[in-house]
Amino acid sequence: MFLDSLISQIQPLDETAMQNARTRQNMLTKPAGSLGRLEELSIQLAGITGKSIPVIKDKVIITMAGDHGVVAEGVSAYPQEVTPQMVLNFLAGGAAINVLARHISARVVIIDMGIAIDLPESDGLIVKKVAYGTANISKGPAMTRAQAEESIQSGIEIALAEISRGADIIGTGDMGIGNTTPSSAIACLLTKKHPKEIAGRGTGVDDEGLNRKISTIQRALDVNKPNANDGLDVLAKVGGFEIGGLAGVMLGAASKNIPVMVDGFISTGAAMVAASLAPQCKDYLISAHRSKENGHGIMLEWLGLQPLLDLDMRLGEGTGSALGISIAEAACKILTEMATFDEAGVSEKK
Amino acid sequence: MFLDSLISQIQPLDETAMQNARTRQNMLTKPAGSLGRLEELSIQLAGITGKSIPVIKDKVIITMAGDHGVVAEGVSAYPQEVTPQMVLNFLAGGAAINVLARHISARVVIIDMGIAIDLPESDGLIVKKVAYGTANISKGPAMTRAQAEESIQSGIEIALAEISRGADIIGTGDMGIGNTTPSSAIACLLTKKHPKEIAGRGTGVDDEGLNRKISTIQRALDVNKPNANDGLDVLAKVGGFEIGGLAGVMLGAASKNIPVMVDGFISTGAAMVAASLAPQCKDYLISAHRSKENGHGIMLEWLGLQPLLDLDMRLGEGTGSALGISIAEAACKILTEMATFDEAGVSEKK
Repeated sequence: MFLDSLISQIQPLDETAMQNARTRQNMLTKPAGSLGRLEELSIQLAGITGKSIPVIKDKVIITMAGDHGVVAEGVSAYPQEVTPQMVLNFLAGGAAINVLARHISARVVIIDMGIAIDLPESDGLIVKKVAYGTANISKGPAMTRAQAEESIQSGIEIALAEISRGADIIGTGDMGIGNTTPSSAIACLLTKKHPKEIAGRGTGVDDEGLNRKISTIQRALDVNKPNANDGLDVLAKVGGFEIGGLAGVMLGAASKNIPVMVDGFISTGAAMVAASLAPQCKDYLISAHRSKENGHGIMLEWLGLQPLLDLDMRLGEGTGSALGISIAEAACKILTEMATFDEAGVSEKK
Repeated sequence: MFLDSLISQIQPLDETAMQNARTRQNMLTKPAGSLGRLEELSIQLAGITGKSIPVIKDKVIITMAGDHGVVAEGVSAYPQEVTPQMVLNFLAGGAAINVLARHISARVVIIDMGIAIDLPESDGLIVKKVAYGTANISKGPAMTRAQAEESIQSGIEIALAEISRGADIIGTGDMGIGNTTPSSAIACLLTKKHPKEIAGRGTGVDDEGLNRKISTIQRALDVNKPNANDGLDVLAKVGGFEIGGLAGVMLGAASKNIPVMVDGFISTGAAMVAASLAPQCKDYLISAHRSKENGHGIMLEWLGLQPLLDLDMRLGEGTGSALGISIAEAACKILTEMATFDEAGVSEKK
């Protein structure tokens, strides 16, 4: 099937390009290693793109929205209507992701993966609606296996379309009231942690709400018994349409040697689904930031990712991705634009 | 005298502007507090500038260069000639600071505060040379008290000139082979720590070099016995011309309600001198990043500053400032450009 064939196209990083980038970093007019993670990042980006001097110009943030039947359990501080309201805010350019994307000169692509209502047609909105929200995971599967495949497939298509438009890097983002609950369930299942260790306050539930959320996640796992060795089953049982879509974006980008800047908690849940399906895609992922949401560090550790930023952010939408992409772009520019010791006539280390 | 009069102009942050910014943050279409340090930073910037919605447009990085007699003790991995060579590299636009300043659309202002040789005249170079390098601090004071005052005075003048040109934020940066040694000496004295806890490898000395550096710092403190309660004495005894200049930049900016993005280890040493002279200037400082250099965390703690970034960088030049300024600019844009719940018709928390 298509997914398997795409996954088989995801190659290990290009060692030659990485070695060339490493060699060049050591020729540039600075003590070797003194730009720390900027240097490491430039080398990873060389490996991902297969280019010894990678360039990031066209920057895209793909923000996917979906609704979640589990909100019926009272797991979110905001009503479900906020999902479409915020998507309209994205389309009008007034949300945090719009501001931060403009700040880094990135475009934002907004996808309806499964909002509970239909939004008016809009030039800026791509509709890939799998269904009008997932089912309540505390009572049964979020979606069918076919819907899980469809959401991933749509994510792949979106990524490939943006890459064919010229995207050099893709940032992920999410919007979906209630979506820290499915992301937590995915994380608990794959990291084998108790919901208490993973679940956080999301958009701001109180102590009672947090306890409700923890027991809801536990029920979702007990009722559905997802197979941790089968990424599609995990997504179908306790995932979400935007989570599947974002996993697809990551797989699609990796198959085309394009780096993915992974936003916070929800995007990291999606990355875990993607990594379950294709472990080699992890090399193509860059963690933008450590979310303030409780179990995010455990999830990043499972993925083997170290976040670039730690600014106590917990908004989603791709806001962390935007800041992270700017750092990735800076890392590439160091490699491209800095003078070498020879060029600048600067003496080397004694 | 002029310095005292300038220091008396540094006011506490504007509480009304901060309260207005805080109120606005809570009206914007995101869960309150979900942008974490971006929100806090926007509130600090409101307090610094006295504007409820601060704007950062004109961004300046002031990179000051000076030489250090203490290099005779073998405390650096690079020869002293690299200081002017790197300044020429700055002027040609090929150094890391040029690349990162271009990335964030900031201008770089290069100052010769005390390079050991004269550089050819250049439009981009401002010469405020106090002397041809400091004296060897392991044998006596770095400079006279009058030279310490002159270096601070020049820094103030540079800052005021850039502010009158329109600077909304000033980032600091340094270049000076050997300057982690005086910065470490300042830090040891003020934090009462042993040089072992503060000194690091700078541009990359080996174990032997590090031990030499540690004992050199200890000798500098023993020989000079700087008065920790007298910032000018500290600077004169164990400082450097670019360190004094950067302290002056911070004081000048604070006196005009302009925020200062403090780069890494050397700039933080300068911030400690500035804070010794005028403790209230600390509110105007933002720490850009945690340097990989050993004692930087202890210095930041002494200043009460929490760094924005932690990317294992240890280059100086203002490279951390550049990345930090971009985050400060983003924080302001959030406050300026995001829609409120009312404007966007988004439902508030249940």
